[in-house]
Amino acid sequence: MTIKKTSALHEKDGVSQPETTSKESAQKIKINRRKHPSTDEFVEKILVGDITFLSRAITLVESTNEKHQQKANEILERCLPYTNNSVRIGITGVPGVGKSTFIEAFGRYLTSQGKKVAVLAVDPSSSVNKGSILGDKTRMEELVTDKNAFIRPSPSGTSLGGVAQKTRESIILCEAAGFDTIIIETVGVGQSETAVHSMVDFFLLLKLFGAGDELQGIKRGIIEMADAIVINKADGENIKKAKIAKVEFARALHLYPPKESGWQPKVMTASALNNIGIEEVHEMIMKYIDLAKESGYFNKKRNDQNKHWLFSTIEQQLKTRFYDNPKVKEVLQQEIKNLESSKTTPFNSAKRLLDLS
Amino acid sequence: MTIKKTSALHEKDGVSQPETTSKESAQKIKINRRKHPSTDEFVEKILVGDITFLSRAITLVESTNEKHQQKANEILERCLPYTNNSVRIGITGVPGVGKSTFIEAFGRYLTSQGKKVAVLAVDPSSSVNKGSILGDKTRMEELVTDKNAFIRPSPSGTSLGGVAQKTRESIILCEAAGFDTIIIETVGVGQSETAVHSMVDFFLLLKLFGAGDELQGIKRGIIEMADAIVINKADGENIKKAKIAKVEFARALHLYPPKESGWQPKVMTASALNNIGIEEVHEMIMKYIDLAKESGYFNKKRNDQNKHWLFSTIEQQLKTRFYDNPKVKEVLQQEIKNLESSKTTPFNSAKRLLDLS
Repeated sequence: MTIKKTSALHEKDGVSQPETTSKESAQKIKINRRKHPSTDEFVEKILVGDITFLSRAITLVESTNEKHQQKANEILERCLPYTNNSVRIGITGVPGVGKSTFIEAFGRYLTSQGKKVAVLAVDPSSSVNKGSILGDKTRMEELVTDKNAFIRPSPSGTSLGGVAQKTRESIILCEAAGFDTIIIETVGVGQSETAVHSMVDFFLLLKLFGAGDELQGIKRGIIEMADAIVINKADGENIKKAKIAKVEFARALHLYPPKESGWQPKVMTASALNNIGIEEVHEMIMKYIDLAKESGYFNKKRNDQNKHWLFSTIEQQLKTRFYDNPKVKEVLQQEIKNLESSKTTPFNSAKRLLDLS
Repeated sequence: MTIKKTSALHEKDGVSQPETTSKESAQKIKINRRKHPSTDEFVEKILVGDITFLSRAITLVESTNEKHQQKANEILERCLPYTNNSVRIGITGVPGVGKSTFIEAFGRYLTSQGKKVAVLAVDPSSSVNKGSILGDKTRMEELVTDKNAFIRPSPSGTSLGGVAQKTRESIILCEAAGFDTIIIETVGVGQSETAVHSMVDFFLLLKLFGAGDELQGIKRGIIEMADAIVINKADGENIKKAKIAKVEFARALHLYPPKESGWQPKVMTASALNNIGIEEVHEMIMKYIDLAKESGYFNKKRNDQNKHWLFSTIEQQLKTRFYDNPKVKEVLQQEIKNLESSKTTPFNSAKRLLDLS
């Protein structure tokens, strides 16, 4: 570009840049990055399995911007009728149990069978700095390059309710985009298992053999939720120990009351690293799904989960509204002090605070 | 009475009734039944241990009339400074385990030691028709005539939150009236154990030996809450079986994570019917109380319980307000139908409902 006008202002000629992308790619990116694709466009693209639009829709779901959320809600309601042919599997286990390796092996087995697999996560403690689960995608380096797999790290956030809601909404979008198997990973410590359990059809607990007393140290609630326990790293010299652990877990599971589904939780061994037992785990899950669909429990559970999420969202929001009320914030600390010094009862305190809102 | 006037109306003389109460009693009843004793009068009488006023104050606490509740709240706040020298013991166990007999024996042992014992109950399922726990006072016929014991059935109500709140407030009144040991009975099925656990210093689970598999069928959560398990009906031929059960329970308890108090839950045997083991149970509880007071855990727990009740009352009320809102009631059923037919997501439904309130 040459400046033609004679003027006190003078600008040097720029150096022309080499083309870094093909015209075609540039055009595609431009279209995709257009500020506001319509809801129609989003839905249309998601339904044909466009991963870029799927990702962008999930970003809208995860956004705290009100306009984004409104758009996300519109997209979600439009995608909802396409979500019923999926299987949702929750996978948990403490750090070190080999969750990523297992999910990679399991996911690759599924894609080899013609399935389309989405891997999502719920980890309320994760953040950019702390590194979320699945954030380090190199941990699943083969699955991540598989065109029939879609991997998305945990949404950030400190409130489990918020994080779980976003993951749950992302499930809907993934299913509308044609992913028929959704794996939800959770970190195996804290309350996130309960949240994940209430959004999946099948809940799998990964364990190691012989990590001290087999019963002690396991959160009982998590065992109670499990539809299956898979003892991972059952290879080489470990096989014998893994088999002993299997017997112990099976015995422990028998102590729990029967599940509403009528399913007796299974214990299996596997070695994700060596691709051993992966197919068997999948067969077992499909057997469960078939039984649950036949008995009607599958649909009943999804309905119950929807209602659970309706009520828990309402209750969470009611609390947030209340405790975020500036008048409540002002008085709450004083009421707690009065409680501690026996100047008031919890019920009188509550009444005074409720009268403020 | 003779009718003097000549009139078309004629009334026969009544038959005079014999005096059924002494003048003194009648006078006392009249004073006590005076419509509105002042808050001052209530507090004064309760603090000198007047059982009639204690009972009437509890009736105010249990009333749903707003004026009564306001008065109850005034009385409660005035009584509160007098509640810190008590021991609050929760007792649970399934029907048939001998709770009434145990509480009678335990209560009578305590009064024989110069203690003043109040027995309250939490049973949200109870009603006049179904017969509440403790409602049938003949089940504790000796304790009920003991002037150092005060027995009050479960307040009626179907909401556990409401029933538990009333019991919790009654504790305050009983303690202000000089009762130094408060026993809270709960029926051993359902959620009321958690409520009782959160209002007592010590939580005791009554069990029978050999009722099938010792672990199966017990609600795990209840065992986890127990500070002690007492195996009742350990007498005659049963002693051996009870001792075996004791060993099994002790082993089971070891599988649970340690308690915040540092206390290792105890397992004991007793025969309430034969007054065997009752003194030992009391000694064990007092040992716990001494340790907990020494470590500061006793006060910490009571403080935590107060805060728990503050927050749970607030949250309960927020929900009640919301779901009782006529606009919400009108729309909720439609939203649930839309959820079931996949026309909306739980989160969109929740948003629409929240916007109504």
